[in-house]
Amino acid sequence: MPQHTITLTDQSLDLDVGDMTLDAASLGSAAGGYSVAKRTLQAGRSRGVDVVTLDNGRLRVSVLPTRGMGLWRAMAGGLRLGWDAPVPGPVHPSLVPIGQPDGLGWLAGFNELLCRCGLQSNGPPEFDAEGRLLHGLHGQIANLPAHRVDVTIDDDSGEVALRGVVDESRLFGNKLRLESIVSLRPGEPRWTITDRVTNISAEPGELELLYHVNFGPPLTVPGSRVLLPIAAIAPRDAVAQEDFQTWDQYGPEQPGSVESAFFIQPAAAPDGSTLAVLHNAAGELGVAVRFNVQQLPYFTIWKNRQAAVDGYVTGLEPAVNLPNPKSFEKQHGRVLELPPGEMRQFELTIEVLADAAEVAAATAAVGEIQQATPPQLHDRPNPDWSAP
Amino acid sequence: MPQHTITLTDQSLDLDVGDMTLDAASLGSAAGGYSVAKRTLQAGRSRGVDVVTLDNGRLRVSVLPTRGMGLWRAMAGGLRLGWDAPVPGPVHPSLVPIGQPDGLGWLAGFNELLCRCGLQSNGPPEFDAEGRLLHGLHGQIANLPAHRVDVTIDDDSGEVALRGVVDESRLFGNKLRLESIVSLRPGEPRWTITDRVTNISAEPGELELLYHVNFGPPLTVPGSRVLLPIAAIAPRDAVAQEDFQTWDQYGPEQPGSVESAFFIQPAAAPDGSTLAVLHNAAGELGVAVRFNVQQLPYFTIWKNRQAAVDGYVTGLEPAVNLPNPKSFEKQHGRVLELPPGEMRQFELTIEVLADAAEVAAATAAVGEIQQATPPQLHDRPNPDWSAP
Amino acid sequence: MPQHTITLTDQSLDLDVGDMTLDAASLGSAAGGYSVAKRTLQAGRSRGVDVVTLDNGRLRVSVLPTRGMGLWRAMAGGLRLGWDAPVPGPVHPSLVPIGQPDGLGWLAGFNELLCRCGLQSNGPPEFDAEGRLLHGLHGQIANLPAHRVDVTIDDDSGEVALRGVVDESRLFGNKLRLESIVSLRPGEPRWTITDRVTNISAEPGELELLYHVNFGPPLTVPGSRVLLPIAAIAPRDAVAQEDFQTWDQYGPEQPGSVESAFFIQPAAAPDGSTLAVLHNAAGELGVAVRFNVQQLPYFTIWKNRQAAVDGYVTGLEPAVNLPNPKSFEKQHGRVLELPPGEMRQFELTIEVLADAAEVAAATAAVGEIQQATPPQLHDRPNPDWSAP
Repeated sequence: MPQHTITLTDQSLDLDVGDMTLDAASLGSAAGGYSVAKRTLQAGRSRGVDVVTLDNGRLRVSVLPTRGMGLWRAMAGGLRLGWDAPVPGPVHPSLVPIGQPDGLGWLAGFNELLCRCGLQSNGPPEFDAEGRLLHGLHGQIANLPAHRVDVTIDDDSGEVALRGVVDESRLFGNKLRLESIVSLRPGEPRWTITDRVTNISAEPGELELLYHVNFGPPLTVPGSRVLLPIAAIAPRDAVAQEDFQTWDQYGPEQPGSVESAFFIQPAAAPDGSTLAVLHNAAGELGVAVRFNVQQLPYFTIWKNRQAAVDGYVTGLEPAVNLPNPKSFEKQHGRVLELPPGEMRQFELTIEVLADAAEVAAATAAVGEIQQATPPQLHDRPNPDWSAP
Repeated sequence: MPQHTITLTDQSLDLDVGDMTLDAASLGSAAGGYSVAKRTLQAGRSRGVDVVTLDNGRLRVSVLPTRGMGLWRAMAGGLRLGWDAPVPGPVHPSLVPIGQPDGLGWLAGFNELLCRCGLQSNGPPEFDAEGRLLHGLHGQIANLPAHRVDVTIDDDSGEVALRGVVDESRLFGNKLRLESIVSLRPGEPRWTITDRVTNISAEPGELELLYHVNFGPPLTVPGSRVLLPIAAIAPRDAVAQEDFQTWDQYGPEQPGSVESAFFIQPAAAPDGSTLAVLHNAAGELGVAVRFNVQQLPYFTIWKNRQAAVDGYVTGLEPAVNLPNPKSFEKQHGRVLELPPGEMRQFELTIEVLADAAEVAAATAAVGEIQQATPPQLHDRPNPDWSAP
Repeated sequence: MPQHTITLTDQSLDLDVGDMTLDAASLGSAAGGYSVAKRTLQAGRSRGVDVVTLDNGRLRVSVLPTRGMGLWRAMAGGLRLGWDAPVPGPVHPSLVPIGQPDGLGWLAGFNELLCRCGLQSNGPPEFDAEGRLLHGLHGQIANLPAHRVDVTIDDDSGEVALRGVVDESRLFGNKLRLESIVSLRPGEPRWTITDRVTNISAEPGELELLYHVNFGPPLTVPGSRVLLPIAAIAPRDAVAQEDFQTWDQYGPEQPGSVESAFFIQPAAAPDGSTLAVLHNAAGELGVAVRFNVQQLPYFTIWKNRQAAVDGYVTGLEPAVNLPNPKSFEKQHGRVLELPPGEMRQFELTIEVLADAAEVAAATAAVGEIQQATPPQLHDRPNPDWSAP
């Protein structure tokens, strides 16, 4: 048999395998070089959070089914991908007050390498005419537990694919299903996230989706750079406008500084594929985030330059839309309308660049795509992109 | 000894029996034909929810002490009583944001066969003059864990009675205690819920209570009918007014349609007893909900005619009050005032009608009660019943 | 080795020792007379709450790491210190909706002997200009789980010190770390709480902190008295103004009565140390709360005279500030400003007075301090102390 599929969680059967580890030996398979470990965290604010760690001998990627299939962090040898948020984590969704009146409760659980912002909405909180919260910051999906989780292992290649299904749905509400697959192969320095979002309703649905991929030191340090092929770029607001000349650079920690964000329409190869690269000052350590602009046409670079203890971090954020209040995005046609039963697929590959040659190759790939497209640089906020 | 009482949960002693099954064999009793199984769910959004399943050989009724003694679902042979809500369940109360500013967070946990709406309030959200939530949709009781659960088994009859105690109380707030007993006897096609609500405060308390009893297919399908003896009936609003001629009928799924509700004062036998019947098109499968108008004088028929995937369902809802904003109900004298220490009892029997004869008998029982009372039919909303 | 330190919980390592008991025998130490028991509660609203009970042979003090290192209750022989709140407890933080729009959700978890109010704010809810909640009643710290808990046992003295670390922090928010140590020695009738609050941010932080120490019967009964050395005292509001002549006395239960509170600047010994004493009518049972006005310059006496079933209780509340809306406290200079990295320490000793001699000695100690300071008695609210 070429494949094993093991159910880890199935809410409808009340099945949860508990803590366990799988590898080639336990499966009696030929191909080795991988392992899958599931664990329910026990301590502090993490109690009750399931973590599934996928190891391909080169990378260890920790996925959080309990937090909407977000990625807690990844280790590439001694390199930790992720950041040090000022809240210990991961945090169980029941301790994240996403409905609190100011719409900022989401931040109480924000500390992951990758979390999705969506599905009904993302962006800053939006309020109704009476000042009541309509949409909290960055939506619900990052705080919804998966009801179904399984892992498929290919006996020949040793490819491991963890699949989770999360419903953001309720009576009289949006009804979207996220099916996320995180996959990696023995020895490769990358993993892929394949997400399918389906409107499981018989009525039209709406989708906003942004991948908040967050890196702190040692990738984000003074002298680090970010690059991607640009079709158009603009600062989000007046703060970013002042920093526009250095949008691709990272400076020293600035305690008390305000976040800076740049909105981008990435350029891409003819098939839509493109990538963003982040590397350190020396250019011998980096990461590439590969995606497709036909699926994810917008990109935000978010820089939080506060002190390390306050969460120095950058977000590389490919997305369906720009992180504005939802009504603004809808007005500008960037909210996806999903007819009943329709599905959209999104793919993201995150790759570790372990030495100068790999950084140089990724940088060259960005340059090659850029060559075909002269970038439009707006040195002030674009009124079609930035909510007033 | 004629009875066994076994404590399943006692928060004051931190006692919880964990997963277990009881039957005549394990108790060494004569009468058989029943079992009681307690299980703490492990997976997805249900993690941490206790389910106690009572089986009398004919029915299996699943009670949720963690969700205010609501009923998750019941199985009568192959017939499932309940509905397919667009949120997988049951949902742990800690994941239901009943306090979110729009007052609709309650819907994130709404997927049960029976849940109570109350105790301090039910009905749509109500806000203060500044637009701040006063009462969320349908109140708190369905999202409060019982602090005491026990089961009593009668050795002679094999009757099983599950009792749970839930306090909806806090300092400077309403202080009501719900003591709910779910009981059934071997081989019978029905179960009874006996609720006692006590004001455990030395100050006056207020009670609203509505039993949201929800049925989807195969009981609610095109051609299904609902009937009960009517003293008076009126559509809730303009939407229901349009459907008034077919208030007792169920039509096909209408994706995108708005819910329709009818407010009813049921007629009853001289002792107050009455019943509502729901049966399928063929009239050979149905359910009867028996109650007493001296305890529960109002009744709402709620029809959600959205597509099956969006939760096609009807609610048969005997109640103390009509599900309007609490201030409106208070104005109209339908909020129960409970003096200090006073208790009110409510009884509900749900009965499966397994063939045409049983459906016909129940239908006849409705007709017999109706005979004595000419129904008042209001073909438009009654201003005393419907909030503007 | 003179000391054992045992880690009970470490979220960063996902380490939790589970249920366990330690004593001199299990540690193989010389000094006996103590034990430490950790237990994760299983039932009802307490499920998932960790309790660590410290026993010195004379006192049993139960600490709640899951609830911000609050104290659930203490037993001194047959005497229970604490109160009977109208909500069964302790309550897991995930069931306490501290963000609900009216800002009163905190009360759903309020039933402890001691809970901290803070750290960013305490006092009544405060709203912004649009009526949206800014600060909920009494802040967040009492509903945040510790991420690190350990216990240190001194082999020679048998002193037990339980340490917990709780972060009230998030990206773009206040970042304060509470390190709390609860310590007691074999045979002594007292325990000490040593709290260090550190601003772990590189930006300035703000701290409000009030120790809500709550006693019901048998310490608070008609005829009970509270006393402490007074530099100045004023009723909080018109209600307390009417009771001003009897601020130090406890009367019978008054169902339906409104809470009464007195704001106090305690007098102290030259080194700042002072104490408050609560004793019963006969003067042969009491408790002393010792603190230092250099750390905790304000004190609130809170009387809730409702019926026992509604939570008859008094709060003795040494604090950094007065429990007013935060903006008022800030205006009046009572919010502590913590520069980056700075720490403040607070110490509180709670002592059982087991007989008339001990009560008399504590009373005399109050008198001795008072002698040096003529008390300022304001018989109406002080506009600098009470928010309008």
